[in-house]
Amino acid sequence: MERLFKHVCLVARHSKPAILTSLRELADHLAANGVTVLIDKESATPEEAGPYPLIDRNDMGKMADLAIVLGGDGTMLSIARVLAPYRVPLVGINQGRLGFMTDIPLHEMLTAVDAILSGDFLPEDRILLQASVIREEAEVANALAFNDVVFSRGAMGSMIEFEVFVDRQFLYSQRSDGLIVATPTGSTAYSLASGGPILHPTLQAIALVPICPQSLSNRPIALNDQCEVEFMLTRGLDARVHFDGQSHCDLMEMDRVMIRRYRNPLRILHPVGYNYYDMLRHKLHWGERLL
Amino acid sequence: MERLFKHVCLVARHSKPAILTSLRELADHLAANGVTVLIDKESATPEEAGPYPLIDRNDMGKMADLAIVLGGDGTMLSIARVLAPYRVPLVGINQGRLGFMTDIPLHEMLTAVDAILSGDFLPEDRILLQASVIREEAEVANALAFNDVVFSRGAMGSMIEFEVFVDRQFLYSQRSDGLIVATPTGSTAYSLASGGPILHPTLQAIALVPICPQSLSNRPIALNDQCEVEFMLTRGLDARVHFDGQSHCDLMEMDRVMIRRYRNPLRILHPVGYNYYDMLRHKLHWGERLL
Amino acid sequence: MERLFKHVCLVARHSKPAILTSLRELADHLAANGVTVLIDKESATPEEAGPYPLIDRNDMGKMADLAIVLGGDGTMLSIARVLAPYRVPLVGINQGRLGFMTDIPLHEMLTAVDAILSGDFLPEDRILLQASVIREEAEVANALAFNDVVFSRGAMGSMIEFEVFVDRQFLYSQRSDGLIVATPTGSTAYSLASGGPILHPTLQAIALVPICPQSLSNRPIALNDQCEVEFMLTRGLDARVHFDGQSHCDLMEMDRVMIRRYRNPLRILHPVGYNYYDMLRHKLHWGERLL
Amino acid sequence: MERLFKHVCLVARHSKPAILTSLRELADHLAANGVTVLIDKESATPEEAGPYPLIDRNDMGKMADLAIVLGGDGTMLSIARVLAPYRVPLVGINQGRLGFMTDIPLHEMLTAVDAILSGDFLPEDRILLQASVIREEAEVANALAFNDVVFSRGAMGSMIEFEVFVDRQFLYSQRSDGLIVATPTGSTAYSLASGGPILHPTLQAIALVPICPQSLSNRPIALNDQCEVEFMLTRGLDARVHFDGQSHCDLMEMDRVMIRRYRNPLRILHPVGYNYYDMLRHKLHWGERLL
Repeated sequence: MERLFKHVCLVARHSKPAILTSLRELADHLAANGVTVLIDKESATPEEAGPYPLIDRNDMGKMADLAIVLGGDGTMLSIARVLAPYRVPLVGINQGRLGFMTDIPLHEMLTAVDAILSGDFLPEDRILLQASVIREEAEVANALAFNDVVFSRGAMGSMIEFEVFVDRQFLYSQRSDGLIVATPTGSTAYSLASGGPILHPTLQAIALVPICPQSLSNRPIALNDQCEVEFMLTRGLDARVHFDGQSHCDLMEMDRVMIRRYRNPLRILHPVGYNYYDMLRHKLHWGERLL
Repeated sequence: MERLFKHVCLVARHSKPAILTSLRELADHLAANGVTVLIDKESATPEEAGPYPLIDRNDMGKMADLAIVLGGDGTMLSIARVLAPYRVPLVGINQGRLGFMTDIPLHEMLTAVDAILSGDFLPEDRILLQASVIREEAEVANALAFNDVVFSRGAMGSMIEFEVFVDRQFLYSQRSDGLIVATPTGSTAYSLASGGPILHPTLQAIALVPICPQSLSNRPIALNDQCEVEFMLTRGLDARVHFDGQSHCDLMEMDRVMIRRYRNPLRILHPVGYNYYDMLRHKLHWGERLL
Repeated sequence: MERLFKHVCLVARHSKPAILTSLRELADHLAANGVTVLIDKESATPEEAGPYPLIDRNDMGKMADLAIVLGGDGTMLSIARVLAPYRVPLVGINQGRLGFMTDIPLHEMLTAVDAILSGDFLPEDRILLQASVIREEAEVANALAFNDVVFSRGAMGSMIEFEVFVDRQFLYSQRSDGLIVATPTGSTAYSLASGGPILHPTLQAIALVPICPQSLSNRPIALNDQCEVEFMLTRGLDARVHFDGQSHCDLMEMDRVMIRRYRNPLRILHPVGYNYYDMLRHKLHWGERLL
Repeated sequence: MERLFKHVCLVARHSKPAILTSLRELADHLAANGVTVLIDKESATPEEAGPYPLIDRNDMGKMADLAIVLGGDGTMLSIARVLAPYRVPLVGINQGRLGFMTDIPLHEMLTAVDAILSGDFLPEDRILLQASVIREEAEVANALAFNDVVFSRGAMGSMIEFEVFVDRQFLYSQRSDGLIVATPTGSTAYSLASGGPILHPTLQAIALVPICPQSLSNRPIALNDQCEVEFMLTRGLDARVHFDGQSHCDLMEMDRVMIRRYRNPLRILHPVGYNYYDMLRHKLHWGERLL
């Protein structure tokens, strides 16, 4: 049978040694089925990887046509940003509690992966954000974000002040702990804790969610993901912008950050039977059927 | 000059006699410019309408190619539901406080209307919802809603219980005061008071916003407006469903209400220079520019 | 041994026939230990009560020196309002899910009741509210509330408008779905669903919690329970005031409702080892210890 | 006439040179009326202070029997912590927008101060919190707070994890951006922005308000101010505890912070006619009377 995916890269959460057994089990299973297996260099030592070549994350997009993540949503986030430019799809196998994205339980790993490699899967495209930090007309940093771009005060404990523009139209000024710009994927993460709405993944939307705004009438707003959001820091000595909570850039007053939807979506492959609402209900402890 | 709109129907908030002077002023101005003026039968008496024919709201869509509303957002709502099937656009002139939709101040009425009739306007399409109440497999009521379809407990003061399905997939069961299904237009109305997100009008979305849910983990969710939302009342002796807060239907246990995006959007014509964010900031008292 | 409580009245949730077995078991156990047992007339038929006299709820305060409730928090509420004038303490045995007040599980009923009758208990005083509805200077209704006095719109679906005064000082006017005036006991009930704070039972406080207020800057406020709260309905054709969600009074525009702490608290007897925070954490699914 | 206050210390917001004119005007006015005027060393240079002695903040409590603050709520906060041990009352004159505590407008300064010195005032006692940071059984820092003790993540952008105990009873574990422990005075400051309730100043209460808690069922809770709150950091590499947002202490994992009501309240003297609710409504833009 013709395999859809011939070069598969495996990624595991680094800090969890117990995952390595599963990683090797999966690698051996795939290899036995004729798949070329690559292993992420940050996920295993050469010894742990055994016969499988270790590859740099920067090469993963060029060398693999599928990536399988064993870990949690955090590992998915870090790989998503690396793979998005190459349109390589992702499969998530969770190692502990079911994640929003790592939706295959460990004990179903082999059968689920077999099915996906045979073409039995539900593809789902998720948007990413592209952020560019501008200081005095020059770009000083840029990054992708799969969950959110978060502007926040630093350790000093005082609120920051900023202005937000959408498609160059003034939206508001705000004094707060910060602002979350979230994708639908990120809408169930930090944004939700800050009072933001859940955005269904098929929604072409991004949410702007204030963090503890001083003005009580501030509210989350969901915008069309075709728009450009501009954040300008007007006051705050230790403000930062965070990308998926995994990298960041210090901001200076008058810095501007431009945020747009990234040109490529990231494709996640779910097992047949995957249901977004089931996952949501499970993760958020929402009510089950009463009847 | 060729007029875009030849038959214009005028609508005024019934309960405000002071509006009639403006109504006649506008009617005379339009007639002097060669427009055929019709007046909504519920807005004026034959005497008040003078030489202009009164027409039934049900005929408005067939007879007019533009409707101008003098009043508030409430009047816009009631006309929107009537005109949506006919794709007749709406212009809103406010009589008091600026409305979210009635965005032309009274003192700019004549110049703004002239500009719009000359083709200088920003068209904006807004979605409506179509709701159908099903009892034992038969439809017992149906209605359009421009702002929201609201399920709520009645006067008895006890919460209702219900289940919600999206595209026939189970979303959640809930015990609460009710549930708001809001369009982007309605997202700045009752939905906002209940903790819902603001949805930009270009967003192809509807929001499901619980009203005082007993389960503290319930949160608003924005769904793609291509989906079908089904509400099923499982417990509640005096529950009702309201359409834009202007009409309603009593519900019995096990009644189901199917909600879909209505096939036609409603087109609002804004004056050139209209800015959604300015309006939002003004209405919600959000921060102006700090610099 | 000298019993602290010689006349004990038993109350059971009417609608649950399965409770009657427990009721009789408890009655027999108490009688065997020399306690005079009375049974609430609304809780059992003469046949079900067997040898034990049925008494009217209005006589319970005079005839019993302890009341034991088998049921849920709802049953506790209804008895609390009846007993408060007589300072008769209450014990709550739950029949299903642990309640905020019915904190003795059914399978520990006999040992827990024995301990309490021997004087091993933690007494806890809870305040009640006394509300008086004034129409044109005359009182048209009055009631006690153990959880809350709730002002709410009726079935018509439009918000109500009202003014609130505290100790005759103007607090605010509001347009909303209603207002909850909650005791610390009620702070974990409807008030919590509407965004109100949890008030520890020892706090001499009442909370004013708006229900879906139109003005986004409205927030819950906790007041000293020595104050007098006055609610005046300024607009609303089908507004009501509810007492513990168990009785209500229709309101007319310009009606005023005066609310004060009731002179007597209600005493609940908890088993030794009772812990308010454990109960809270359990009911609200709050985080357990991480270490 | 006998003056109630013979030694009055004046304090001004350092960074506002325009305040100095008012400071000297007030100083001269008081001196002309036989009051001994002292000036806070951080508020003016010797030149600016003219004939009036500059005193150290640490001596203020011993040397003055009244302190008058010209500035905003921030200046009040910093002086409150200094004066509380000495029971010296405070008067607040605002220099810009009316503050929650600086409730005398500048243009009424002289008449308001005269009235207060003649004994015409409304005294109001406000509680403070006393916090002690414990590391391995030793106190490594302690501080007073008039508004709040705030635990928060630092600049790294990841949530912190902690446990909270009340009177040595476990309350909850939490993963969040942090936790605010607020006095009634602080309940209208940062706590309010984070969703906390307003606590009336006469309430013997402190509020525990989570900041963006990951668990959606977490809610603010108001406790009796007689209790002891213990915070233990279980996870977080850059957590901090802030006192009134004006000083702070870095925390290490397993550090504990004990918080109690401070033994002395701080007394604020308001002009006759002061009304807490008017101030609240004004600051929060709440609805005025509708009738």
